[in-house]
Amino acid sequence: MNILITNDDGIHAPGIMTLKNSLSSIGEVLVVAPETERSAVGHAITLSDPLRVIKIEKDGSFFGYAVNGTPADCVKLGLRCLAEKPVDIVVSGINLGPNTATNIIYSGTVSAAAEAVIMGVPGLAVSVASFDTPEFDYAGLLAQKLTRLIIKNGLPEGTLINVNVPPLKEKDIKGIVIAKQGKGRFEEFFDKRTDPNNRTYYWLAGKRMNIDTDDDVDEVVIRQNKVAITPIRYDLTDMNMLQTLRTWKIE
Amino acid sequence: MNILITNDDGIHAPGIMTLKNSLSSIGEVLVVAPETERSAVGHAITLSDPLRVIKIEKDGSFFGYAVNGTPADCVKLGLRCLAEKPVDIVVSGINLGPNTATNIIYSGTVSAAAEAVIMGVPGLAVSVASFDTPEFDYAGLLAQKLTRLIIKNGLPEGTLINVNVPPLKEKDIKGIVIAKQGKGRFEEFFDKRTDPNNRTYYWLAGKRMNIDTDDDVDEVVIRQNKVAITPIRYDLTDMNMLQTLRTWKIE
Repeated sequence: MNILITNDDGIHAPGIMTLKNSLSSIGEVLVVAPETERSAVGHAITLSDPLRVIKIEKDGSFFGYAVNGTPADCVKLGLRCLAEKPVDIVVSGINLGPNTATNIIYSGTVSAAAEAVIMGVPGLAVSVASFDTPEFDYAGLLAQKLTRLIIKNGLPEGTLINVNVPPLKEKDIKGIVIAKQGKGRFEEFFDKRTDPNNRTYYWLAGKRMNIDTDDDVDEVVIRQNKVAITPIRYDLTDMNMLQTLRTWKIE
Repeated sequence: MNILITNDDGIHAPGIMTLKNSLSSIGEVLVVAPETERSAVGHAITLSDPLRVIKIEKDGSFFGYAVNGTPADCVKLGLRCLAEKPVDIVVSGINLGPNTATNIIYSGTVSAAAEAVIMGVPGLAVSVASFDTPEFDYAGLLAQKLTRLIIKNGLPEGTLINVNVPPLKEKDIKGIVIAKQGKGRFEEFFDKRTDPNNRTYYWLAGKRMNIDTDDDVDEVVIRQNKVAITPIRYDLTDMNMLQTLRTWKIE
């Protein structure tokens, strides 16, 4: 099995190391990841600048390719130029912090798996739902299990799998739930400050709003110390509104 | 009516000038746009860097605020910090080039309207479907008409309107179709080159693949010289696959 790995925390993040170790036991792994953190870049791709690739070593041997681009760039470049054999699956992660609810839209991790799907290769995104106390081991094991299952069962064209794992050891995890995307989002504000040269700048900050309550929604599942597995599809047409719009007198 | 305008081609692009002129006749318009082109940034937001705002003048009077961020940043900053009154609608565009089919996922223009919707404000994205021969006048008129209709009729929570206009004069446009998002995408490749210092770089290139054929799909509508109006919703759960996944033996 040929597996392409990427992330949005950058090639030097601990999560991608765990992911590589875990998946190396079931296939040949190629790492192509951003050279620095590219969180919250969403599905950005680089059109106006050249992309450069450097080889990264860890512990004296080749670890993977670092790219001065976004996660979606890494998947495109990996599949088109860097992989020497056809890739069977793209796995993105293990991300530091949850990619649930509205946050999925901003996520570089999920967008990398979406880019794979756009290019006709199955995609899997894996995140650990904590910034402070990451615990990657179980997420790595689960990534391995899901990679095997996705290759065995296949995914519908256009669908990727998004997984969020509580930041706990395996024994403390209360189960696995196939869950929907929630509607929760960050309540944001801007911190307005003055720099040492007396110029104003704004810094985005915010806190998570927990507005979801149903037991089968990703955010709620995570709060219950369970794994949330969500099938994601970028089929964006609002079919109900399609009918309503036809009744508007536009012309 | 208070209208916030943004785009992804940058505050100096001609499309945003047409949009401002057109919407100024129906409301008070505030322009908050990227200081340079930020095409294909998708729904990227800026977390790791400060945002700066500068006032831009055109023809001797205040035109709007330029931000060193993405279209989604501009909407967040515009709604939270720069608008002095509550904003009734965010209009993004007029974009140079189509935002149809799979391209919607990469689009900064559409993501700006999506960001508005996430923040609880109706969103409208407007594009002219040509890079070479833009013709913004009719798109400006249509943006005005749709802005009025959206304010009058409202939009469902979470839904934005994405409009693609053929690059033609009004008399040559064959009609308006309420259309679905297509499945077409770019067939991409990387041009591998060597820089003057003998280092390798890669540049993303590609051409549009026309795989959609149904008459009610955005890409097809545009090819028929008609306007495509598509309601878009970032509700990403694949409900069919949700059932299938429950039959997988994951644990």
